[in-house]
Amino acid sequence: MAHQCVVVLIMKERYFDDVKVGDRFKSEPLRVTEKEVIEFAHKFDPQMFHLSRKDAERTIFKGLIASGWHTAAMSMRLFVRTLNFAEGAIGLGVDELRWPNAVRPDDVLSVETEILDVRRSRSRPEHGIIRLRNVTTNQRGEVVQTMLASAMVPKRSNGR
Amino acid sequence: MAHQCVVVLIMKERYFDDVKVGDRFKSEPLRVTEKEVIEFAHKFDPQMFHLSRKDAERTIFKGLIASGWHTAAMSMRLFVRTLNFAEGAIGLGVDELRWPNAVRPDDVLSVETEILDVRRSRSRPEHGIIRLRNVTTNQRGEVVQTMLASAMVPKRSNGR
Repeated sequence: MAHQCVVVLIMKERYFDDVKVGDRFKSEPLRVTEKEVIEFAHKFDPQMFHLSRKDAERTIFKGLIASGWHTAAMSMRLFVRTLNFAEGAIGLGVDELRWPNAVRPDDVLSVETEILDVRRSRSRPEHGIIRLRNVTTNQRGEVVQTMLASAMVPKRSNGR
Repeated sequence: MAHQCVVVLIMKERYFDDVKVGDRFKSEPLRVTEKEVIEFAHKFDPQMFHLSRKDAERTIFKGLIASGWHTAAMSMRLFVRTLNFAEGAIGLGVDELRWPNAVRPDDVLSVETEILDVRRSRSRPEHGIIRLRNVTTNQRGEVVQTMLASAMVPKRSNGR
């Protein structure tokens, strides 16, 4: 008789108190599909190098590439799932957002997060503010996006 | 006998040569729907204040809000359609991306673009580089996003 084994992974929720300057986190990989690149472009960035493989061949990219905003959104997905802050991380701002290499269909992206600074929130004592750098790379280790960000995340209260 | 009148609007394509420092452009309005806010969140920013109206009530936002990356993507759509650069505008980088007010379902967004700087591209003589500020506002005139960006756009050649 076969036994079915169900493994349920419950991701640990993180709080402000759980991170410190210098901590690094590496995300899971995420494969980029041509369908999603084109779908995102139709909705949000309708330019020829994002919309159609054929038209994109005639551009300076010589092929279809993902919108930088699509790369940013995919990177956010990877960041959110990796850090997994309880109640969520509230984005306060982003600086120096760069796309040094193009993202193409079938690329496999991952994000590495480094905590640059942690401080208490003056206006919201139950939250802390973290400053971080997110670097998104493809399957060849080429950097496709870098950014600095500040986010407000909850502190662990006595009750939890 | 009724006459059918079909008006076809062909948007003028813009080149580097067509913009100068101080020029301002105002986009069309875009209504944000709850369905799209939730759909974007499921794909890219799965946090409770973006995912479900009910769960979002219990957060500090007291209701569903759009991901900042969704606001950025919608703002890109409005910018691209308004400026309509021939062959597209290639994003080189974004600075000081901020979300001073939350975007909620049924908000109506529009983007105002100001050209801050224009210069030739050293590496690509057939292109120029523009520096711009995009400000996204809602129907009450509240600013929901500000950013600075640099983009590479094509120069008008003699042939066109």
